Amino acid sequence: MARIDLNCDMGESFGPYRIGDDETVIASITSANIACGFHASDPTVMDRTVRLCKKYGVMAGAHPGYPDRVGFGRRYLAVDREDLLNDIVYQVGALQGFLARHSLTLQHVKLHGALYNHLAGDEELLLAVARTVRTAFDNPIFLTLGTGRTDAFLERCRREGIRLALEAFPDRMYTDEGFLLPRNRPGAVLEDPEEIARRAVSMARDGIVTTVGGRPLSMSIHTLCLHGDNPQSVAAAARVRGALAEAGIDVVPLSRFL
Amino acid sequence: MARIDLNCDMGESFGPYRIGDDETVIASITSANIACGFHASDPTVMDRTVRLCKKYGVMAGAHPGYPDRVGFGRRYLAVDREDLLNDIVYQVGALQGFLARHSLTLQHVKLHGALYNHLAGDEELLLAVARTVRTAFDNPIFLTLGTGRTDAFLERCRREGIRLALEAFPDRMYTDEGFLLPRNRPGAVLEDPEEIARRAVSMARDGIVTTVGGRPLSMSIHTLCLHGDNPQSVAAAARVRGALAEAGIDVVPLSRFL
Amino acid sequence: MARIDLNCDMGESFGPYRIGDDETVIASITSANIACGFHASDPTVMDRTVRLCKKYGVMAGAHPGYPDRVGFGRRYLAVDREDLLNDIVYQVGALQGFLARHSLTLQHVKLHGALYNHLAGDEELLLAVARTVRTAFDNPIFLTLGTGRTDAFLERCRREGIRLALEAFPDRMYTDEGFLLPRNRPGAVLEDPEEIARRAVSMARDGIVTTVGGRPLSMSIHTLCLHGDNPQSVAAAARVRGALAEAGIDVVPLSRFL
Amino acid sequence: MARIDLNCDMGESFGPYRIGDDETVIASITSANIACGFHASDPTVMDRTVRLCKKYGVMAGAHPGYPDRVGFGRRYLAVDREDLLNDIVYQVGALQGFLARHSLTLQHVKLHGALYNHLAGDEELLLAVARTVRTAFDNPIFLTLGTGRTDAFLERCRREGIRLALEAFPDRMYTDEGFLLPRNRPGAVLEDPEEIARRAVSMARDGIVTTVGGRPLSMSIHTLCLHGDNPQSVAAAARVRGALAEAGIDVVPLSRFL
Repeated sequence: MARIDLNCDMGESFGPYRIGDDETVIASITSANIACGFHASDPTVMDRTVRLCKKYGVMAGAHPGYPDRVGFGRRYLAVDREDLLNDIVYQVGALQGFLARHSLTLQHVKLHGALYNHLAGDEELLLAVARTVRTAFDNPIFLTLGTGRTDAFLERCRREGIRLALEAFPDRMYTDEGFLLPRNRPGAVLEDPEEIARRAVSMARDGIVTTVGGRPLSMSIHTLCLHGDNPQSVAAAARVRGALAEAGIDVVPLSRFL
Repeated sequence: MARIDLNCDMGESFGPYRIGDDETVIASITSANIACGFHASDPTVMDRTVRLCKKYGVMAGAHPGYPDRVGFGRRYLAVDREDLLNDIVYQVGALQGFLARHSLTLQHVKLHGALYNHLAGDEELLLAVARTVRTAFDNPIFLTLGTGRTDAFLERCRREGIRLALEAFPDRMYTDEGFLLPRNRPGAVLEDPEEIARRAVSMARDGIVTTVGGRPLSMSIHTLCLHGDNPQSVAAAARVRGALAEAGIDVVPLSRFL
Repeated sequence: MARIDLNCDMGESFGPYRIGDDETVIASITSANIACGFHASDPTVMDRTVRLCKKYGVMAGAHPGYPDRVGFGRRYLAVDREDLLNDIVYQVGALQGFLARHSLTLQHVKLHGALYNHLAGDEELLLAVARTVRTAFDNPIFLTLGTGRTDAFLERCRREGIRLALEAFPDRMYTDEGFLLPRNRPGAVLEDPEEIARRAVSMARDGIVTTVGGRPLSMSIHTLCLHGDNPQSVAAAARVRGALAEAGIDVVPLSRFL
Repeated sequence: MARIDLNCDMGESFGPYRIGDDETVIASITSANIACGFHASDPTVMDRTVRLCKKYGVMAGAHPGYPDRVGFGRRYLAVDREDLLNDIVYQVGALQGFLARHSLTLQHVKLHGALYNHLAGDEELLLAVARTVRTAFDNPIFLTLGTGRTDAFLERCRREGIRLALEAFPDRMYTDEGFLLPRNRPGAVLEDPEEIARRAVSMARDGIVTTVGGRPLSMSIHTLCLHGDNPQSVAAAARVRGALAEAGIDVVPLSRFL
């Protein structure tokens, strides 16, 4: 029986500011990527988000980003390798404190925004981050973008004992080589909940991403990324969850099968 | 045989800025209070400071402060109770990440600056912080200011299973009631290394603080606070360490006797 | 003919975060208090808010606060006198840059949140701030809370050549001594638009604040503070503007009569 | 008679942290580049630095950088064009407040660190910044790196009414094409005060930069950049000043001849 994890970024509010309808979208997912105070969030928002995960039985992961709050971690910052590793240890450790306070464990780590994108294109640095996370914490799952080339990286991680999870985006179009079509290209972001749900089922059941050229591309996929930023994305998330259930796919957190 | 811990604030540099001669003063102490990035430090400085503790066999503690870098955590900030608890969990958790990365454990937690002072005057809030730290982490020792009134607080903590350590300042004058004489009062800060060392021995061996009125005041003392900000304080720290050895007092980290 | 200014805090968004319906409430006011990047806002939000003032012909003022973004400047911070003056010069100067870029002038300065409240209770420090603002900028109007005691302060400022404006809150209840009833007291914040509008007319036309004990208290009032945080306050603001017009009161910016 | 300006970065301290011996190096220069609180400095340091300029009769300029304090503005940050222009207006405006407070005027604007380097390679963006600075402020001089290609840019700015100043580095080696040899290349940074002083005279009197290949390259040079970070650079700055005087070159601020 096919199985898949559903993840979503959460806890991105800050001080007096609110972003995302966390309480609603959390009903559709199995893993939460919790912002850690560098690109978004603050200690009280982190505590509240961890409580939310506990209440809904959703697995918690850290979502570290660049130290750039005003840019929401979406702008590339030329951080030195050592500083980058330390920035990540700091953020994941901070979240770990809240998890321990509420007797939860750290399931996974997923990088955020420009940091996620930059490292998706630098396999050596990505591996260095994954190794550091494994050493500093209790070997959580490390989540990164699945592409037409990541099956080899998956194998490399396995040999090192790194628990890697690859994610796909049911609401994003892919190039024929299996990379995300840049957001500024027409058709890059899908909005029809039914189409998004269909793609999610295909990704989860068959490990197939249909590319912009109509090509069915096979790749390892362990988790699908959903969104909770606005009512449309929250609705799409619910539709994906429903469609997976209808297709008989087991929706379970990563830690149940990785 | 009398025994005492010697603690010192460390890792207060930030980005391109340096404060404190950590590498020198560390030879005189047994416990390091490591800044956690709110009032001072950054992830790379934290990693470097943790490595220093490992190299010198000094026990590591967290030193959380108010989120006020420009004020170095020395200015009172009216933080709500929940926000305060969360600010502390965040900072201690962040340090915990670096400790785990280097296979060290968290020995203690000591608040910094205005936060330390404010809570020394609010026993209920101090207890709430100590409880939260015990819950979120592996019951580290909680370090606070010993005064003429803290023996009762010590007993209260013991009943709750909180490992409390009381500290004294050999380079600070005390009021006849056993509180620190405010810094702006004449004679509040001692500078003669020999006098500081004599007071340290008296505190460590006899549990006696000599007050501004010449009164010998008895109080529980587990650790003495030394400083590494400037060449004078580094020299005084070395002299304290030497005088304690000469007096046959065992200088050991808190975790060895609490 | 009676005349009054209507002011409202604006430009409190930050990076990806939005607060306040600036584009709607601006139609009801004559003076905007623009956040300057310490408690809220960022350079791009400031530029956008200045453009909005220009588009709607609303006079622009600086709204400096404590350097405490996560607390939105609502928490008291024990800033030294010199640091406080410098924090204010910095923020007002930054806004001045955007005003000059768009050929606008700085009409007024109004402190924010806990800084506003703290200085309303410290007349000497308030005067020091007003003097510094007069010196560093082109003698903008300095806006502070009108209370049962501020008429004497007004006279004192006039003698020094400081252009002071006193403000009242039509949606807040006052004590019999003419101070704001603390927010946590029942009835402290009014919500009925009609009642708010009636009080606004009484304040603007007669210089009368009706206190919690029903006493009509006379005080100098130059401007009324409205809010744009939520749909209710935006609606109340529009109702106040309408009621003032119906009562034949001239609603004009401070610079037209101070 | 030949004339030259000497500039140096100043006011880079922050809160409790000190960098640079401003009080000593200021005796050797005619123009100060004052950090504006994004990559370094704080409001009180800015006020102190402006007072220092006034005391020594040195012209003041703004030195805006990326919003990256921990990285000291030395790390590239992918800021959008509008955000970048606004970041600069904010910082220059903030400094302008302190200058006005002390009755000084803004002589120039020089970008800092990674922002300086990035824009030195993007002429269109550099021109957009220079235009925005001219519009928002009272047409201060805009200072940028002189290279083998900037004479054309200088002409372009003149046609637009932008007062451009080109700077050279007497302590840096240049490529044969007239660009700075990257710092990580051997011989990139000169340390002998006599050699630095000789190069300074050649740059100031003859407009000649001797390249790594020994080629004398002619370029427009209005100002030389000195350093005050450490005792060596402070001594070299004094030697440069002395050598220029001995060579009969008039050392005067930019505003005297641009």
